[in-house]
Amino acid sequence: MTIDFRRSWMDEDLELFRDNVVRFIETEVQPHDEAARKAGHVGHALWRKAGELGLLCVDIPEEHGGGGGDFRHEAIIHEEMARRALSGMSVGVHSIVAHYFLNHGTDEQKRHYLPLLARGEIVGAIAMTEPGAGSDLQGVRTRADKVEGGYSLNGSKTFISNGYLAGVVLVVAKTDPNQGAKGTSILVVDTQDRPGFRVGRVLDKMGMKAQDTSELFFDDVRVPASALLGGKEGQGFFQLMGDLPYERLIIGVAALAAMEGAYLATLDYVRERKAFGKPVAEFQNTKFKLAEIATQIKVGRAFIDRCVEDLVAGRLDTATASMAKLWGSETQGRVIDECVQLFGGYGYMNEYLVARMYTDARIQRIFGGTSEIMKEVISRAL
Amino acid sequence: MTIDFRRSWMDEDLELFRDNVVRFIETEVQPHDEAARKAGHVGHALWRKAGELGLLCVDIPEEHGGGGGDFRHEAIIHEEMARRALSGMSVGVHSIVAHYFLNHGTDEQKRHYLPLLARGEIVGAIAMTEPGAGSDLQGVRTRADKVEGGYSLNGSKTFISNGYLAGVVLVVAKTDPNQGAKGTSILVVDTQDRPGFRVGRVLDKMGMKAQDTSELFFDDVRVPASALLGGKEGQGFFQLMGDLPYERLIIGVAALAAMEGAYLATLDYVRERKAFGKPVAEFQNTKFKLAEIATQIKVGRAFIDRCVEDLVAGRLDTATASMAKLWGSETQGRVIDECVQLFGGYGYMNEYLVARMYTDARIQRIFGGTSEIMKEVISRAL
Amino acid sequence: MTIDFRRSWMDEDLELFRDNVVRFIETEVQPHDEAARKAGHVGHALWRKAGELGLLCVDIPEEHGGGGGDFRHEAIIHEEMARRALSGMSVGVHSIVAHYFLNHGTDEQKRHYLPLLARGEIVGAIAMTEPGAGSDLQGVRTRADKVEGGYSLNGSKTFISNGYLAGVVLVVAKTDPNQGAKGTSILVVDTQDRPGFRVGRVLDKMGMKAQDTSELFFDDVRVPASALLGGKEGQGFFQLMGDLPYERLIIGVAALAAMEGAYLATLDYVRERKAFGKPVAEFQNTKFKLAEIATQIKVGRAFIDRCVEDLVAGRLDTATASMAKLWGSETQGRVIDECVQLFGGYGYMNEYLVARMYTDARIQRIFGGTSEIMKEVISRAL
Amino acid sequence: MTIDFRRSWMDEDLELFRDNVVRFIETEVQPHDEAARKAGHVGHALWRKAGELGLLCVDIPEEHGGGGGDFRHEAIIHEEMARRALSGMSVGVHSIVAHYFLNHGTDEQKRHYLPLLARGEIVGAIAMTEPGAGSDLQGVRTRADKVEGGYSLNGSKTFISNGYLAGVVLVVAKTDPNQGAKGTSILVVDTQDRPGFRVGRVLDKMGMKAQDTSELFFDDVRVPASALLGGKEGQGFFQLMGDLPYERLIIGVAALAAMEGAYLATLDYVRERKAFGKPVAEFQNTKFKLAEIATQIKVGRAFIDRCVEDLVAGRLDTATASMAKLWGSETQGRVIDECVQLFGGYGYMNEYLVARMYTDARIQRIFGGTSEIMKEVISRAL
Repeated sequence: MTIDFRRSWMDEDLELFRDNVVRFIETEVQPHDEAARKAGHVGHALWRKAGELGLLCVDIPEEHGGGGGDFRHEAIIHEEMARRALSGMSVGVHSIVAHYFLNHGTDEQKRHYLPLLARGEIVGAIAMTEPGAGSDLQGVRTRADKVEGGYSLNGSKTFISNGYLAGVVLVVAKTDPNQGAKGTSILVVDTQDRPGFRVGRVLDKMGMKAQDTSELFFDDVRVPASALLGGKEGQGFFQLMGDLPYERLIIGVAALAAMEGAYLATLDYVRERKAFGKPVAEFQNTKFKLAEIATQIKVGRAFIDRCVEDLVAGRLDTATASMAKLWGSETQGRVIDECVQLFGGYGYMNEYLVARMYTDARIQRIFGGTSEIMKEVISRAL
Repeated sequence: MTIDFRRSWMDEDLELFRDNVVRFIETEVQPHDEAARKAGHVGHALWRKAGELGLLCVDIPEEHGGGGGDFRHEAIIHEEMARRALSGMSVGVHSIVAHYFLNHGTDEQKRHYLPLLARGEIVGAIAMTEPGAGSDLQGVRTRADKVEGGYSLNGSKTFISNGYLAGVVLVVAKTDPNQGAKGTSILVVDTQDRPGFRVGRVLDKMGMKAQDTSELFFDDVRVPASALLGGKEGQGFFQLMGDLPYERLIIGVAALAAMEGAYLATLDYVRERKAFGKPVAEFQNTKFKLAEIATQIKVGRAFIDRCVEDLVAGRLDTATASMAKLWGSETQGRVIDECVQLFGGYGYMNEYLVARMYTDARIQRIFGGTSEIMKEVISRAL
Repeated sequence: MTIDFRRSWMDEDLELFRDNVVRFIETEVQPHDEAARKAGHVGHALWRKAGELGLLCVDIPEEHGGGGGDFRHEAIIHEEMARRALSGMSVGVHSIVAHYFLNHGTDEQKRHYLPLLARGEIVGAIAMTEPGAGSDLQGVRTRADKVEGGYSLNGSKTFISNGYLAGVVLVVAKTDPNQGAKGTSILVVDTQDRPGFRVGRVLDKMGMKAQDTSELFFDDVRVPASALLGGKEGQGFFQLMGDLPYERLIIGVAALAAMEGAYLATLDYVRERKAFGKPVAEFQNTKFKLAEIATQIKVGRAFIDRCVEDLVAGRLDTATASMAKLWGSETQGRVIDECVQLFGGYGYMNEYLVARMYTDARIQRIFGGTSEIMKEVISRAL
Repeated sequence: MTIDFRRSWMDEDLELFRDNVVRFIETEVQPHDEAARKAGHVGHALWRKAGELGLLCVDIPEEHGGGGGDFRHEAIIHEEMARRALSGMSVGVHSIVAHYFLNHGTDEQKRHYLPLLARGEIVGAIAMTEPGAGSDLQGVRTRADKVEGGYSLNGSKTFISNGYLAGVVLVVAKTDPNQGAKGTSILVVDTQDRPGFRVGRVLDKMGMKAQDTSELFFDDVRVPASALLGGKEGQGFFQLMGDLPYERLIIGVAALAAMEGAYLATLDYVRERKAFGKPVAEFQNTKFKLAEIATQIKVGRAFIDRCVEDLVAGRLDTATASMAKLWGSETQGRVIDECVQLFGGYGYMNEYLVARMYTDARIQRIFGGTSEIMKEVISRAL
């Protein structure tokens, strides 16, 4: 008997979809991951390839060029990436951008952007965080001032996933600096041929090496009035809040899949590797650690499965999704730390999966709202 | 919004059953708990009352005098007891005894004992652990030697739940001391008018004060050949192994319910209690602790629910049930420790629920197989 | 080689003193502990016996009837009690009361009370905490109203160590309810023949069973003006603050000694006890747990030793003493929890040292200022 | 008041020495660290510069070209490097190599190598670990076969600190493969112009980027008989065991200094950085985390100071040194993890100290004997 990794929400069609995803990853993503980790990004071609194969915007309706699936399809992509520590393409952010268009965009915005995103012709990014401002939306200082024909954007953003490759950026900015949440809007900025817009460095992170996390600078960047997401000012805060369950569950789903991947790799390793004349797997300490890890995974599987089903059914609340993010990322941190330890010196070498997973895992407790923010959110719901 | 404590496996009939259980507990058990804690047992009358109300052997078929329900009915009883820290009646052990008869007993044994157990006329106990032998079945030294007309039992047992009140004890003994597992049998011992049988002290435990955990002594105790459970020697080990998922899930179910009870009591307390001029609930530390606890409960709920459903469907394996026991009892220990801390000095006073829960919780990681045994079991399944 | 339990601050004279303490404990305290645990107090005779033997107020100058020693003598008493889980006599509180007189009392108060305390003719207690008020001095509601010839005390106190046996109680009360800290005073209340004074129940705690923790009630209790500690109103807050390093280090010292006692008992147990055919001590899990525990003790020993030396030298600051209390009590909780687990079922039985230590340990993180208060205090010093 | 970082073993001379070390680090090491992290090594020039300034082999007697100091001088170097996350020069390994020569070398070996090491003309490395063999000395497969005029070395080594720059490598090899420990010897291999010797890749590690950890290959590498450390076969195991307290305390010392560095950087950050309108330092969660960290540091300081003093006095045993390594590296891991979290997204960026410290810290629990090995060693001493 082995641990059972089946998801309650899988069916035969989804199995076929998972096969497609795995094939894409194994032929297109994984072989180039080392190069991408050196370059700091995966390049535009990979995104277009994913689009061609129908692996982007998989839960966007077909009428908008998407896959017509639901969150389970999304989940499969995040899982297969996460269990291989392939963090280069932030499909999550790309999908979230698509959802902003779908849920909040004008008809024109949907018609224009969704097919481009689904085909991978442009990569999507969200520019929320500003230098020194963290998860605090109230502290946004980027301004969108009304000028003739639209807005002038001024400010800077940092930690922007997909920032280097992004063709469209949803920029959170103040349209009315005198107001807090109500003065916040989202502007849709096409990055090409956009005077005043500049992509800063691909940031030198401790992990997630293949992902093009970047700084973005806006210096009197002119956008037309039609660039306002949803066409109405002051909706930014509410637009951002609405999709939190979706965003947070993506992190929870990926966290659990990473644990599963790390667990399986570790199980293989300790069986094969010998120390003091016997397989590492036979030491009581090893057995106990693996039993604890397997228990965490099994417990988490039931919870994440329930969250996935609830999201698909439209009933996942923000507090529960925040728990998925909190529990997932915190447990991932501990589990992968244990796996690294069981690998000994090899666990410290980037050529080993668990080493890459270790540094990748550390951001999970920080981005998309830190663990501390999650606890605040959860406590408010109690 | 508050945390959602609904179980996925509840239905309307079960809600009615839960109402009955709660009524029984609130009128018959809780008012006498303090007295029972002093006496070290709940007395026979309470067991008979429970039997009269149909609250014993609820998952034993009606033809045997049981309630005709399934594990969900059992779970409800364990939950409602556990959330109130009422540990006096070990309904779990009583039910396990009934299951041994149901699954392994001869027709005669079923016919005789099951109705008695269901009516609460006799209380059931299992005598497995011996002084100095812990969870190690191989080390059983109690002997059942063949004598004319049956067996002569010699040995001693300890940590026997329901031991003081027990009318029937399932005694694990060696029928063939030259063999290990294969030499082990279970003998059914009626305790009344049984020469050579003696109940030792009700043990002075740190918690579970109302439960009559006792030592039992067997000094040439004669039982007829028909006292052999299932009528065949050497089956003891396999009989004991067969019901492990059932036994372990009971502990997991109770663990989670205790956490829920502690959480709700703590939430009430920190809202009402003030420190340094504001409710304790408003300190960030309190909010974070409660958010962590609520997350643990929510994650565990999905897992325990799945286990309950799997057990009812007959597909819960021993490794997963061991995870429920391990995860449940370990998390219970941490969660209730945090709750005690949030109560401050009151958390140390036995009149407060969380204080009683704290000492009760400590045995959960030990009895029914220690956490270490659980890890061994789980690791073997990996 | 074994772990080295020597203290850096011991010398030959202190070794002799320790021998005396051990002799007293082994002949006078330990044999009656079980009875004291049932009674809820150790009785007056034991205190007087301790006084006769010169084991009370050992760090009070000889001119006041004390032992003329320093904190090292105190530490030895706390250590030898703590390693045997003998919590009946709160020598700590008694000593703190003596120090209040020594440091803040009028000459008359010193002359009268210190010899009585040193001889054990009266037991000392401090009445600070009030129902529902915890560690928050600002929230004191007990009032000392000026009346002819002195004060009238009204209010109630709870969680008072030595409360049942106390002959003198230092009562924290408001002499000016309109002021905060500056309106707080300490009143010296002789308990005998004191109309309006009433000792409530000996509280039913989860542990520390032999200690007479009680509620105290004051209903128009008249005390003369000379009962004001130090003879001046409004000094209570400063008097209480001044001795915090002394009080907190006592808890840290006791915490570490309890860990040592639990460690040694566990080491003995796992060597002798067998499971699955070999001593429990030979399982890797046992070895690792004991190595972790021994490491904690060794690390803590260096720290506590340094604190003891600093206190004797008069240079231990409150933040560092708070660290000793925080680290000591938190580590004690974890270490003794592990020891209980290594004892299996026996660890749950009160006849075993570690079981009594487990419930005793839980209050250490709460009384004398909770861990949360310690963190507040430490953070203010950073 | 702030936390007190003074060491009990410092004196005025050592303060002057520390100033020199800091000056060297700030002018020669830190400005080139980013380049070294990219190159994977610090280059020979830096080692020679350190030698010129008298900062290598500081605890080697002057007669051998060393600094004539003791372990306190060594400790100062490790501390000042560690608190700045400067891991490029493994001064620790270099010093250990020198100690092997000093303690076990022939007069000729001492005369030749110690001055070269002290001047930084050659860098020292120890080649112990082999691919797939971890900390298990018994499993060494590299062979030193007797040939005319000396030995022929065959085998491969991995995870060799200073491996790329090393001028002399102490190679652990079997001189008698039929024996275990007694068949193990150490051979001194000059790397220049050494046919058959090859340095493999500088390994791609998750952290310690500036350190030239490498693989080494030996293919019929001929060394003269005089290359045998100490001149006698079969001494390797004992030579390796003898210096363990020294080696392990270096890791403990560096661990604590890294915590101090991380703590100070975090304190600065949270005071300056704002979130939700107030400094991060003012949130209760921040205050509590910092109080816990400061407590760990303060407790550890007393312990590490005692170890340093004991080592200088020649009385530090291996078990206690292993505790310093175990406690230090485990606590470092947790403390720096907390610091990263308090930095939020910036904590994930390599330009921030704590991010580099985080990945550097992970190897501390693995190299020089894993935490599991430490626990084995400690448990044997109990």
